[in-house]
Parts: sequence; structure tokens; C-alpha cells
Amino acid sequence: MRLFEEVCNGIKPSYKDAEQLASKRMDSLIKPIGSLGELERIAIKLSGITGNVNNEISKKCMIVMSADNGVCEEGVSTCPQEITAMQTVNILKGLSGIAVLSKHANSDIKVVDIGIKSDLNYPGLIKKKIRYGTANMAKGPAMSQEEAIKAIETGIEIVQVLAQEGYNLLGTGEMGIGNTSTSSAILMVLEDIDADSAIGKGAGMTDESYEAKKTTIKKAIEINKPDKNNVLDVLSKVGGLDIAGMAGCFLGAAYHRIPIVIDGFISSAAALIAYKLNPLCRDYMIPSHISAEPGYKYVMDQIGLKPSLNLDMRLGEGTGCPLAFNIIEAATLIMNQMATFEEVSMNDDFLVDIRQE
Amino acid sequence: MRLFEEVCNGIKPSYKDAEQLASKRMDSLIKPIGSLGELERIAIKLSGITGNVNNEISKKCMIVMSADNGVCEEGVSTCPQEITAMQTVNILKGLSGIAVLSKHANSDIKVVDIGIKSDLNYPGLIKKKIRYGTANMAKGPAMSQEEAIKAIETGIEIVQVLAQEGYNLLGTGEMGIGNTSTSSAILMVLEDIDADSAIGKGAGMTDESYEAKKTTIKKAIEINKPDKNNVLDVLSKVGGLDIAGMAGCFLGAAYHRIPIVIDGFISSAAALIAYKLNPLCRDYMIPSHISAEPGYKYVMDQIGLKPSLNLDMRLGEGTGCPLAFNIIEAATLIMNQMATFEEVSMNDDFLVDIRQE
Repeated sequence: MRLFEEVCNGIKPSYKDAEQLASKRMDSLIKPIGSLGELERIAIKLSGITGNVNNEISKKCMIVMSADNGVCEEGVSTCPQEITAMQTVNILKGLSGIAVLSKHANSDIKVVDIGIKSDLNYPGLIKKKIRYGTANMAKGPAMSQEEAIKAIETGIEIVQVLAQEGYNLLGTGEMGIGNTSTSSAILMVLEDIDADSAIGKGAGMTDESYEAKKTTIKKAIEINKPDKNNVLDVLSKVGGLDIAGMAGCFLGAAYHRIPIVIDGFISSAAALIAYKLNPLCRDYMIPSHISAEPGYKYVMDQIGLKPSLNLDMRLGEGTGCPLAFNIIEAATLIMNQMATFEEVSMNDDFLVDIRQE
Repeated sequence: MRLFEEVCNGIKPSYKDAEQLASKRMDSLIKPIGSLGELERIAIKLSGITGNVNNEISKKCMIVMSADNGVCEEGVSTCPQEITAMQTVNILKGLSGIAVLSKHANSDIKVVDIGIKSDLNYPGLIKKKIRYGTANMAKGPAMSQEEAIKAIETGIEIVQVLAQEGYNLLGTGEMGIGNTSTSSAILMVLEDIDADSAIGKGAGMTDESYEAKKTTIKKAIEINKPDKNNVLDVLSKVGGLDIAGMAGCFLGAAYHRIPIVIDGFISSAAALIAYKLNPLCRDYMIPSHISAEPGYKYVMDQIGLKPSLNLDMRLGEGTGCPLAFNIIEAATLIMNQMATFEEVSMNDDFLVDIRQE
């Protein structure tokens, strides 16, 4: 059995017994039951992932998948395609949004060339190029199914290494001009959503270029006729290598029982792919922020997740994840450091203090 | 002129020129314009507060105002009133929600007895008791106007000390059983909102006790007839010492040009008081999370603020603030550490690297 199948078939559900114990401890802490809302739910989810009531986030990593999209030649983006390579280097240099936010979150960052169009050489870049960018999906399949599987396996392998190195919280990001178009195409097919609902205007787009973007994406779906019941068919025909790589990260994280954070729209499209391949992946996914892209909410509804941050962000690169890392860490500390009612009532120092007054 | 008036009249607007410079730099960073949404707006707001484009959050402090509310004798809360004192001590001991989250955010925490019903003695407690809890507002004014002003001045004085000590980010929290009732009463009067819109069911309340809570609050307003055009009249008749103290913090922070974070519903009621006393306070306020209490959104709409966190939290104590501190720090780092397009284009290492390949 090849790695892809082994992982897809090997994902186990979260530990319900640990979740129950965690839930019980959460309800015993000195606060009204449920009053820490999402923090409580995240802490309990982590218990289900690891099997331990108490968890410590000691090693965090952002994974950024960089790849080019052939559909750029249709003019779907206001950015030149070269930005993919340039911005990949800027991430490695520590100058981009995700680099700054990862550092703030005390998170490492792995940048993967999974399909940049040019040959790129920069210290720290993980070279896993499947091909020099995808083909133009408006003219035919973006890639072969074999290439899509290889890209997924790349994501799985990277998570495997991180698991061995002891990372216990992961985040997913991407750099790939044109990838809101591929994400929208995936969403339209897998969720049967129309173009207006799935496709955003992006930054600095005119009404005209927005209409052209929608036309291109619809054309890509028409020409390729992806089978909505075959996730690999959809991913390979109208997806991207970055999305496939991130989907692999979600599968790998679920397989290795590591919590993994979804960033914005593109990352959520990858999460949807992983979820469709094995719905148990959901137990290991934690959303971060509500993307300003319109398609995002459909993915969250489908998977059944609710993001906590509403920052009106639409940069990509994974920038929502490090902000969520802080909330996830806060959730573990609530579980580990808050006192229970029992502990407080056994310790009557304070009553003595009142009496002394 | 007494301190209260000096501060109320001495608040200046934010520096618009610094905001403009900050906005210009933000738009020059290597990202699509506006794509970091709220992070960008927070960074620019900080520039307006301090007058500097680049800001560093080096010293953070949570201020927790503890006080009892006489209205508790009407049974408006499911918690016994003694919890106010007990939980105040638990905060000081590091065992409560706000203590754990403040530590996580590397924030100091100042706990103020501004009106606890009992004499409380615990290391670290700042003793500024105005009176032993308020009177029952369902039977008459909660306190005198002089007491309300003294409580506001207590908040101002605490911020003054923190300003001298170099703190550059503050958060507001409270501990006071019954204070959702006082907050709701303030909101109903100042914003002309009906009981169903302003009053939440809180934790563990039955339909019956919820109706009783609404009846009590309506009775308090009927009996006291607070003048909606006189903020001090409203605050003293149907408010609380914790709310007055926090309102003083908001005024003091604006006066000393320090950004100050709003927690949930009770903190937002205090922010509303400060805003009504001087609308310029808004320039210095940063919201944190959307409280699960129904009245919260009216306050945000009135002041014109938009919280970034949606965590379904309703614990109080200030627990939303340390989570927002992390986002505010992230915003400053975006401004300080991301590269501009100009910087990147002047540095062509990366192009050389591509050519080497």
C-alpha cells in the first residue's frame, strides 16, 4: 500500500474517553460552567487528539507550501506570477507577514517549494518540486492524478518528520499567485456552489477583471468536468500543488495525532480535500480566522468548524495560524493552571486572612 | 479643579498626522494593501495614540476592579455574594482565569478592592475601598454621586501610577457578583434599550430567575429615575463601584495616551460611561472579544468599535484582554518588522540566487 493510502486509511478518531475526562476537569475549575467558551472546547479537543487531559504546546511549526498556478496566464490575479518566488524568499528572509507573525508566536516555519515555476535556491528552502507550476486549468487538467498524490504525500512526509522532531502544533500556509482561483474551483465542484458565492474579488480587482476571473474558473470546470465524487479528480483537474501539499499536511497531522490549524480560504480548501478523503481529519483541525473570501464560510459549515478570530484578513501565507496558536496555548494553560473548586475550598488561607482583618 | 474634571477636560484627540504616516508605511509593506485588516487598523490606531509610527509594547498590565453590589440581595445572581471576595483572592493567588491568561500574555495584574463588602487582606491587593459594597439599587441609589466620582478618580489614579511606571498597554477587568445587572441597568438608561435586549440570562439561570432579574432591574430604574443625560446620575444610581473604577481607567488611559483594552459586557458598560463623559476616549480604546451577553453589541455600536475575537466567552475578570494583547503586539510587529516593497527591490540577493541555479 502506498503512503497516501496508508495514511488515508490509518487515521483514527479522537480519544472520546480523554475528552470526557477533560470536560469533567474543565467543569470543575473555578468559573461558571462553559464561561470560557471556545477556550474550553479547544482544550478538550486537544485532549481528544493526544489522549491526555493536560497538554503542553512546546514546539510549534508553520508549513508554507509554495507553488505556481498555470491559470495565471488567463489574468486571474492582479499580481505578476513572479511574486510567488519572490515572496517565498521574503518568507525565508523573515520579511513577510507570516515570518513576522511566526516569530512573534515563537513558531518555527518550514517553506516548501512544491511547484514553483522557476528554480529557486535559498537557504532553508525545502525542495520538493513536483513540477514547474501546474498547467492552465482553463485549457485542461492542472496536473495528473499521480502528481496530485505525490504532492499530498509530500505534505504527509513533511508532517512525519515534524512529528518525529516533537512538534505538537502545526499551521498551514501557502504562497501561490492564482490560488484563490483554484480554491474557488475546488469549492464550486465539491460543494455545488455558484461562482458568485465561491469567488472573491481579491485585492485591487476591477469589476471587469472580477467577471473575467469568474468566467475563467467556470471555463476550467466546464472543460475538465471534474467528478465531484472523486476528490483526487477534482484536486488534479482544477486544484493546485500548494493545496494538494497542504491537504497532505492535514492528513498527516491527523494520522500522527497532532493538532493542525487552518488559515484562510486556500488553506480551508485544502482542509476540505483532506476532510473529503477522510472525515476523521476534522477531529485534528482547528480553524483560526474568518477569511474575507466569500467561499470560506461554506467550507467551515461543511466541515463543521467555527473560527474564533475575525480580523478581516486576506493575506494568506498562513498568517491566521500564529494568532490562533496563542489562543490554543491559552486554552491548554486554562486546563493546566486554573484551580478547581475542590482545591480552593480545601485551601482556606484566604478565610484565615479575612478573619485576621 | 478636581482630578475628575481635570482628566475629563484634558483628553486630547489622537495624533492624526502620525496615523497618516503609519497608514502610508502600512501600505508600503510587502502585502496587498489592506490585506492584514484589523492588524493594520490596530497598528495605525496605536500610532495615533502615541504619535509614533513604530510602537513597542514593552509593559502590559491588567487592572481588575473588585466590588460588591447591594442588588444581590434581590437574588439577581446564581452565585453567593461571597464569591466576590473569594475570587479576588484567587486572582491574587494566580488560580483564576484572568491570572492564568495574564501570565500567558506576560502581563502584570493589579487587583483593586474598590468596594468589596468584607475587609479583605491579601498580599498584593490594592486597597481603595470607597464603601463596603453599594446599596441595593432596587430600593434606592446604589451610591452617592460623590462616591461615584471618587471611584472614577481611583481608576484615574491607578492608571496615573502605571503611566509613571512605563506601562504602555492596559486591560480592564472586574470581579463583582451582580454586575451584569448594574451593567444592564446602565445600558438600558443610557441607550434607551428594553430589558430583553439588554439583560442576559447568565450562567445557570432558570426562566423564572431570569424574569425576576429583569423585574429587579426595571424596578431599580423606576425607583431611581436616573437622568439619561447625566452620566454621573446614572452611574451612581444604578451602577457599581467596579464599573465606576473601570470608567476611571478608560478616562485615565486616554488622558495619559495609553491604549486600553475593553473586556466583555461589564467592561464595555464602563467604557460607555467614559465615552459619554468624553467621546475622545474612543481613540484610546481597543475592544477584545464579543461577549455572549446580549447588551454588549449595543455598546460597541454606540462607541463605534469592532472586536476581533469571537470566543463565546462570558467569564468576566478581564479574560478577553490578555488574548487581545497578543493581537495588538502582533500588529506592532507587522508595522516594525515587515519589509517594504522598496526595501525588497533594492536588495536583489534573491535574484542572484535564482540566477545561480
